[in-house]
Parts: sequence; structure tokens; C-alpha cells
Amino acid sequence: MTGLTINQITVGQSASFAKTITEADVNMFAEVTGDFNPAHVNEEYAKGTMFKGRIVHGILGAGLISAVLGMHLPGPGTIYLKQELKFMAPVRFGDTITATCTVKERLEEKNRLVLDCVVTNQDGVSVIVGEALVMAPK
Amino acid sequence: MTGLTINQITVGQSASFAKTITEADVNMFAEVTGDFNPAHVNEEYAKGTMFKGRIVHGILGAGLISAVLGMHLPGPGTIYLKQELKFMAPVRFGDTITATCTVKERLEEKNRLVLDCVVTNQDGVSVIVGEALVMAPK
Amino acid sequence: MTGLTINQITVGQSASFAKTITEADVNMFAEVTGDFNPAHVNEEYAKGTMFKGRIVHGILGAGLISAVLGMHLPGPGTIYLKQELKFMAPVRFGDTITATCTVKERLEEKNRLVLDCVVTNQDGVSVIVGEALVMAPK
Amino acid sequence: MTGLTINQITVGQSASFAKTITEADVNMFAEVTGDFNPAHVNEEYAKGTMFKGRIVHGILGAGLISAVLGMHLPGPGTIYLKQELKFMAPVRFGDTITATCTVKERLEEKNRLVLDCVVTNQDGVSVIVGEALVMAPK
Repeated sequence: MTGLTINQITVGQSASFAKTITEADVNMFAEVTGDFNPAHVNEEYAKGTMFKGRIVHGILGAGLISAVLGMHLPGPGTIYLKQELKFMAPVRFGDTITATCTVKERLEEKNRLVLDCVVTNQDGVSVIVGEALVMAPK
Repeated sequence: MTGLTINQITVGQSASFAKTITEADVNMFAEVTGDFNPAHVNEEYAKGTMFKGRIVHGILGAGLISAVLGMHLPGPGTIYLKQELKFMAPVRFGDTITATCTVKERLEEKNRLVLDCVVTNQDGVSVIVGEALVMAPK
Repeated sequence: MTGLTINQITVGQSASFAKTITEADVNMFAEVTGDFNPAHVNEEYAKGTMFKGRIVHGILGAGLISAVLGMHLPGPGTIYLKQELKFMAPVRFGDTITATCTVKERLEEKNRLVLDCVVTNQDGVSVIVGEALVMAPK
Repeated sequence: MTGLTINQITVGQSASFAKTITEADVNMFAEVTGDFNPAHVNEEYAKGTMFKGRIVHGILGAGLISAVLGMHLPGPGTIYLKQELKFMAPVRFGDTITATCTVKERLEEKNRLVLDCVVTNQDGVSVIVGEALVMAPK
């Protein structure tokens, strides 16, 4: 149960994870984080916003990036050092989002990797773009 | 139910939110995001890591930053644009973590704010530091 | 709080339990078991399968059989020894399924019972058929 | 996002998935299935049983077998046809269990596989043994 070491990883290598985000997911995310922003949990309020209804927490999408890094590329044993996130578009209840991480740089002497991260919805729209820095498993 | 507009906010203003993170929270976060990294859900595996036991998903702590931004400063109506996160130390099951966001810069013509974000544990250790860029409510 | 002893049970006796299976149930089942098969949690993927949408985990239906055995027939104190399951048809989100267990054989000297188990949906379609072997409460 | 076809699978090939089973997992399994057998959800009752405390639902362990089949071997696209389960020993709250499925037989003309399934705890004790029949992805 160990992920890939830096020598098993090449620039350009990528991995993905996808999931449909449900109303129950958003409610649980609110419970876990305490983020009861009415944009996420109050439909009456949310109807009056520019999004015309509740939207998914942006950080929830970042959780799928974390799933890719910690489970697939590099996988178990990865140390998460840094994450940059740009929120490009809202995720709506019932959207299926896919996080894809692609190795951009190998910092071999420091055993670190830089990965481009993008989360897209079912229509191919990028909802999050960003960059991760991780230490690879040994 | 509207947050603070940019004119109601001054540089140096801050807000916080704190929560004890339980084993059940970590399990739910795994459900919501699909992140079943064994470091978070497999105690036997985790005992053999440098952390000597399961740790909380790093991104879960970022959820508390999102709670501060979306509920308190600036509050409802905030548009989340960007977040940078550095993971400094692990969060353990049962830790009480506090996210604090402090206004660092007001970009008035664009209606945007830059905030310093820090998540600390009950011992005062910084577990996440970062920076957020948001559009203030109108 | 004790179930029926073998002497209180006759061949042909049966008990049932029914429940509507929601999207939230399927998400929680994924959390508890780690089974994030995209057939259950990814609507976009699932649309492209022969089932044309997400379906419920087959084993979730077996959980309703376990509910009948452990709560009703024989009830508390039952030791679950063996279960055979044939998955006959998919269960969809929102389906109401009924598990029915019927005593087929009393192995009195060993204090054991063989039960026919069937799970049907709201249209009377058998979605699971199988057989259980249990030790009755004393 | 497609699993292995029968031609990519050899007899003897195996895959595993492991997870620590928490009290919250057991409570959620009870909620999802309606199985509120006091052996699982009533500590006062459970103290008086031969197990001297609450134990995990047997069928929950079968869910980890399903996770291996549907996510890893053969993986997405697998049709679950049949499962036999023998419950050998109780799983306690906090146990880390590992489900391992090993290909025993390839029924190539029918595109089916028979797999030996075993769930073990952190001490190497087999808690479930059984056999699965699946149709491989095409």
C-alpha cells in the first residue's frame, strides 16, 4: 500500500477521479467544516443570488484533487505541501466533476513534484484550476 | 442575510471559526470527496507512517477558512476567487482547529479583498497558512 | 430483548423489512465500505452503462436481509453463519425494497435454521435471492 | 474508467482494499440498511452477549469485497452475479479489515470469473471467507 516513488513518475503523467456531487454531499461538507454559508445550504436565499440556486462549496472540489494525489498519483505515502486554487465557475447539485492532476515538474533532489490540477464538470467546463506541490512516497 | 461590503471592511480586520475535528468528520469528508487515502481511514497503515496514526485530510482544514470567508468576513454574498494553502503540520483526530482570516489588502476599484489565512490547533501550532482572494458582497 | 428460540419457530414462518433507498443512502454506503465504484457515485459514467444511470450497491440490499434476521426472525441473539446471494436485477435510487426471510429448515440438534431470502422491489421484481444459515438465540 | 477485461486477467491475480471500521461507520450502516440489531447499536445489551460489546454488522465486511470487485479486480463495468459469505469471527469497532479477492477460475466463453474472497482483521484472523461470481467488463 505505497504510492509511486519519484523515479516511477514522469513529467506529463496524469491521473483522475470523478464523482457526482449530491445535495447530501454538500450538507455533509457543511457539517464537517461548519461552512453553513447560505449559498450552500439555504435554497430560498440562494434563489436570489446570481447563481439562482444553491451551489457546491468550492473547497469540496479541492477534496477531489486531494483524492487523486493521495490515492493515485503519487498515491499513499504522499506528503501534501502546498495547493493553489482558482475558482473559475460554480458547481451545481448533481454535477459530476472530475479532478485531473498532471505532473509538471520533478524536483528530484528534494523528492518533490509539482502538479497541474484541474477540476472539470460534465460539460467540460473548468471549475477549478490550480497547482499542487507534494513530497513523493519513499 | 448579506455580508459586509468593502466599505464596511478595514485592513487588519479579522474573524475566526473553530471546531473540534472528530473521527466521524474525517469519515464523512472521505465520503464527500472520495479521498480514502489510507493515511485518513486505515489505522493499521497509519500507525506505520511518520505520523504514527490517522490524520485529518489537509483540505478539511481549508473548509474552515471557507466558513470564515462565507459566513463572517466578508460573509454571505462573497465570491471566492482564489486560495493558496501551505500545509505546515498534521491535524489529528480530536484536535480543535481555529481558522482566522485577516484583511491584508483592499482592492477597492475591483471590489476585491486579499486575506491572510491561518489555521491553528489547540496548542497554537499553525497547521495551514495561506492567502485568499475574494470579491466582496455588494 | 431476545429473539425467538428454535422451539418458537416453525418451517414456513417468515418476516419482512422494507425501506426506500435514497441517493444519500448510497453515498453513505460508499463511505462506510469504501466502494466508490462509478456505477454508484458517478452519474455521468453511469448514464453510459447498460443501466442508464446510477444503481444501488448490491450488498446494500443484503443489509436488509441482515436486518430481518437480526431484528425479527429469529431476532436479537442470532449468530449469522452463512449467506448466499444472487443478484438478479439492479436497484435504482428511490426504489423501495422489501427483504423477506422464510424458514426452510430447522436443524434442531445444532440449533440452526436455514432461511430462504428474497429482496423484491416495489414492482414485485426479485432483485436478490439467496439463503441464510443462522444459529438461533438461546 | 473501465476495469480489466477477462483477457487481461489471470488465475491467481489478486487485489485488496483495507479500512478501519469506526463506531460512526456502524451507525451509518444501521441507518442505511435499517439493521438496528442491538448487537450493533446498543452497548448495554451487547455487554451481556458472548462478544462482551458491540460488533460490526457482518454484511458491512462484504461491502469491502464489493469495493475490491467493483473498483479494482475486475473494476468498473463488472456485473456482480453471486456472492457466498461465511462469517467466521466478529469484527469489533476500531478493527482494520482487509478484503482480498483472488481469481480462482476464468470462464472465458461466458466472460465470467470466480474469485476467492477473504476479509481479515489486523491480527490476520479471517473474519469472512467466501466466493464471488462476476461478469467481467467488456
